[in-house]
Amino acid sequence: MTVAADTRPLDLLADFPAIPAGWHYLDTAATSQKPQPVLDAIARAYGETYATVHRGVYQRSADMTLAYEAARRRVARFLGGAENEIVFVRGATEGINLVAQCWAGTQLKAGDRILLSTLEHHSNIVPWQMVAERVGAAIDVVPLTADQRIDLDAMEAMLTERHKLVALAHVSNVLGSVLDAKRATELAHAVGAKILLDGCQAVPRMPVDVAAIGCDFYVMSGHKLYGPTGIGVLWGRYELLDAMPPYQGGGSMIDRVTFAKTTYAPPPGRFEAGTPHIVGVVGLHAAIDYVAGIGLERIHAHEAALVRQTREALSQLNSVRLFGPEDSAGIVSFAVEGVHPHDVATILDEGDVAIRAGHHCAQPLMDALGVPATARASFGVYNGADDIAALVKGIERVTRIFG
Amino acid sequence: MTVAADTRPLDLLADFPAIPAGWHYLDTAATSQKPQPVLDAIARAYGETYATVHRGVYQRSADMTLAYEAARRRVARFLGGAENEIVFVRGATEGINLVAQCWAGTQLKAGDRILLSTLEHHSNIVPWQMVAERVGAAIDVVPLTADQRIDLDAMEAMLTERHKLVALAHVSNVLGSVLDAKRATELAHAVGAKILLDGCQAVPRMPVDVAAIGCDFYVMSGHKLYGPTGIGVLWGRYELLDAMPPYQGGGSMIDRVTFAKTTYAPPPGRFEAGTPHIVGVVGLHAAIDYVAGIGLERIHAHEAALVRQTREALSQLNSVRLFGPEDSAGIVSFAVEGVHPHDVATILDEGDVAIRAGHHCAQPLMDALGVPATARASFGVYNGADDIAALVKGIERVTRIFG
Repeated sequence: MTVAADTRPLDLLADFPAIPAGWHYLDTAATSQKPQPVLDAIARAYGETYATVHRGVYQRSADMTLAYEAARRRVARFLGGAENEIVFVRGATEGINLVAQCWAGTQLKAGDRILLSTLEHHSNIVPWQMVAERVGAAIDVVPLTADQRIDLDAMEAMLTERHKLVALAHVSNVLGSVLDAKRATELAHAVGAKILLDGCQAVPRMPVDVAAIGCDFYVMSGHKLYGPTGIGVLWGRYELLDAMPPYQGGGSMIDRVTFAKTTYAPPPGRFEAGTPHIVGVVGLHAAIDYVAGIGLERIHAHEAALVRQTREALSQLNSVRLFGPEDSAGIVSFAVEGVHPHDVATILDEGDVAIRAGHHCAQPLMDALGVPATARASFGVYNGADDIAALVKGIERVTRIFG
Repeated sequence: MTVAADTRPLDLLADFPAIPAGWHYLDTAATSQKPQPVLDAIARAYGETYATVHRGVYQRSADMTLAYEAARRRVARFLGGAENEIVFVRGATEGINLVAQCWAGTQLKAGDRILLSTLEHHSNIVPWQMVAERVGAAIDVVPLTADQRIDLDAMEAMLTERHKLVALAHVSNVLGSVLDAKRATELAHAVGAKILLDGCQAVPRMPVDVAAIGCDFYVMSGHKLYGPTGIGVLWGRYELLDAMPPYQGGGSMIDRVTFAKTTYAPPPGRFEAGTPHIVGVVGLHAAIDYVAGIGLERIHAHEAALVRQTREALSQLNSVRLFGPEDSAGIVSFAVEGVHPHDVATILDEGDVAIRAGHHCAQPLMDALGVPATARASFGVYNGADDIAALVKGIERVTRIFG
């Protein structure tokens, strides 16, 4: 990725009313705070223009349907896919489960293999374990390099024609390690495997273009992209989606229902049973407009600068161990020697610094790192040097208390 | 159901900012408009107190977790179940799919039978067709009585020990027919079958108590109960939920993940993979407080009065055919002789009356009624006599135009 020349720090805190002065929110990898345009879009959709979609004959419902489908086009443009390749789901977790159930569940057979990596989030492990157990497939795990990236050389050596699917995090939610998604895709395709990328942490932090990557499936969550909760996106190549059976049965996903025989709608409708999360979709549109208005290259540069400053500052402290590569995307995991990460987070919270401590839904990675948990600071567009200063001050206090 | 003595019409329009003066919203069975307390709860959750749940060590996240779990207790109290029997899902459709996949998919075998009725919504047909096809079970369909209720006498005669599951609408989304849920449950249990009730249209329109009914599973949607989109509830008896395998894999639903073996959390967490629709849950809590504050008996009496007035007025018009029983709950389906329902709805829309026209996701019922579609007016707490007057005036205009 080329980084834009404009690397002046972003100054957007005023857009985020839920971040009061003096509170240092460093848990954006868990969920991001919402900017005013997203709050306004949600308030307008519920409080001024609310109606159902797809089925109302009256004007208000026709208008909301246009807004809903305009959001789908916006997501398609944002990710580099086509409109009919965008499936609205509850979140990235559901997107992965949908592919596991409807694609892997029908395409994989006993003896086939799935390739994951050591640093995957549980949402990119457990769905594959469930389907593998059902069809009799096996799972292989790509190890990490010394600087804690997914080791693509090892992956190349591991891949065989038995591997039908590769599923990897585009950016690690614990380490911030950025995958070379294009190379990973080429390696998967070289043995005839499909590849799914978990883009939860990538999409808010860098430009993503599924067409340029060449991957087969891509998932993301709205609430991590400054958007509403309960909404996410699965992008899939149309020919793959079109060959997949439906996911959930219900309204909107059918063509014709009789008790004798039911036929299904084409994608993406086939995968969107029931009344959708209408306002979630509208809010996601606003969130994409917001980050695109800033520019993903600028956001990436901004977070890279914050990561650099944080790692530099923390590496001055003898008792701190840093995880992840130097160029991690917006996320810094660390440990304070002799102090449980929960205690670190609790003491930081007393100083109004909100970080995450725990296994971050990545227990196999914790096992690989040899720790029960890490402390994690993660950045968003609203963070700045004062947040890093508060973090460092808090950690110094931790070391004094436990020192 | 006993109806409260206080049947004065509700006067709550001022609580609903999305209903402008002169607009007659009669599509509440599709989705309800949102009262100010729900709008406020959503705005506060995103704009003041936002954080993730269950995993943050800092105070804001602990507070949001308390709010999330308080909502679960509120739903449990509202439905008459226990806290650990409440699973948050995207909507009623997903709730039914969850039971179809995780309960029926593991409990039913070839030769078993599922009992549905003619008036079911597609969401209470297609998931059962999908699982029946998978396991080799068969589906039977209870017919309707002359006044278009589910015929429980016929059901009694049809049920056998091969029937393992009965799934019925508590209130029909097309006809408003109210099921005698207690008798239906007793009939199902008499042959050892479990029973699921689709409560989408019941919960906003009458008091519901799953303990008093005695049923096994109950589903509802938030957006039809004056709450947010993208959130719904599955209630299930704990011992049934506890015996069910997980639904989707991901964060929060696990106990311990390794690549060798993953173990799962107990219900309800086992069924709530990934970051939940946090703000949807908080908004649903506010919606339940809102309707409970009015009183479901009063809401039922209010809507019963509106239905009575509508049916009386429409029965004066020679060209109008009414569907459904006289005491339908808040919903009136009708046809205007010689005019397609879509044309009826379009002309009504010109007079600012929003009704629904179509198959209402109940094509088998349309087949049984011998029509391709119906026009449907459905009521909420904000409707009054002026809405009925506008509806009748609009239909008179339809008959003049097509007469």
